Amino acid sequence: MRICFVGDSMMNGTGDLEYLGWVGRVLRDERRRRPELTGYNLGIRRDTSGQILARWYDEVTRRLPVEIEGRVVFSFGVNDAAQEVNPVQSLTHAEAILSDATARWPAFMVGLVPIVPDDTRERSRKLDAAFAELCMRLGVPYLSVFDGLMETSTWLDEARAGDGAHPGAGGYARLAELVLASAAWRGWMDNARAP
Amino acid sequence: MRICFVGDSMMNGTGDLEYLGWVGRVLRDERRRRPELTGYNLGIRRDTSGQILARWYDEVTRRLPVEIEGRVVFSFGVNDAAQEVNPVQSLTHAEAILSDATARWPAFMVGLVPIVPDDTRERSRKLDAAFAELCMRLGVPYLSVFDGLMETSTWLDEARAGDGAHPGAGGYARLAELVLASAAWRGWMDNARAP
Repeated sequence: MRICFVGDSMMNGTGDLEYLGWVGRVLRDERRRRPELTGYNLGIRRDTSGQILARWYDEVTRRLPVEIEGRVVFSFGVNDAAQEVNPVQSLTHAEAILSDATARWPAFMVGLVPIVPDDTRERSRKLDAAFAELCMRLGVPYLSVFDGLMETSTWLDEARAGDGAHPGAGGYARLAELVLASAAWRGWMDNARAP
Repeated sequence: MRICFVGDSMMNGTGDLEYLGWVGRVLRDERRRRPELTGYNLGIRRDTSGQILARWYDEVTRRLPVEIEGRVVFSFGVNDAAQEVNPVQSLTHAEAILSDATARWPAFMVGLVPIVPDDTRERSRKLDAAFAELCMRLGVPYLSVFDGLMETSTWLDEARAGDGAHPGAGGYARLAELVLASAAWRGWMDNARAP
């Protein structure tokens, strides 16, 4: 199985001195069950939903040959919140991306993460809820991690102590735990592709 | 600084259960000196020089905004050797890639790695020597790692014990050591971009 992880700096793992991010930690864990699992991290710093719409298909298609089971995990939206993209536009972009993706590969979406400034964090929280609704309508499993990351102060503390936006190894480890412990992720990973 | 690592499965780190590969290990080490360093791993399994020629520019341009120091590291050629691409063609592709890259960003190339079958390994060794000459002519620093990886049996032993092609954590750790210990890499990383 090969999985493309398409998103922004939080997908890239920016700020994690261990160079794993949450994606690396999730892959490391999953590979204990599937040693042949290949991951492609396609997170790009500052990418908004519009930039992801423009590139995701080309980049994913190159990495997922038809003869091998391929999957796509998305996580974006915090740059839309930070750059005050109109939420209607973010939703339009997300729907275009996800409806195309799920027609071709099993797709999964991880929700938006908390951001340090209060106003951006509030927009991020609202967009997370809107993306969750959209994904339910499209039949794409969606994992909201916002509240889980706010349960402890690790994520925001590390972001404040770092570059002001990105957590360190502790925050990413917590996010990986939330993903790995969720029924949504476990069910998606264990589900074989429909023929 | 942001560095794109463009290449094949050996760049991706395929086979490493720790999900670091040599790129992850090199970044982890470099980040101790530059905590702000961002890495983009653009290794794709089975990519030949021709496939890399077709995609590298788009993928790198999206990840290296002009206002931030960007660099590109290449490593490819083993799939050319495995698929018996005419070496003249491999060299034409490599020259097109590297001359464009070095005109825009500081570029570095890591040479071909040993492959299990004797005939492929011999073609890989020859292409490594030809790429080294090409890079000298183009003024792109080139690090040959072939002999260094053949000094111990780790690389090929792990490849045989794994999927037949890719090493495990030991082989990738050894390759990362060769890169980090080389004067070519150290000089390239410590050299500021010309204005």
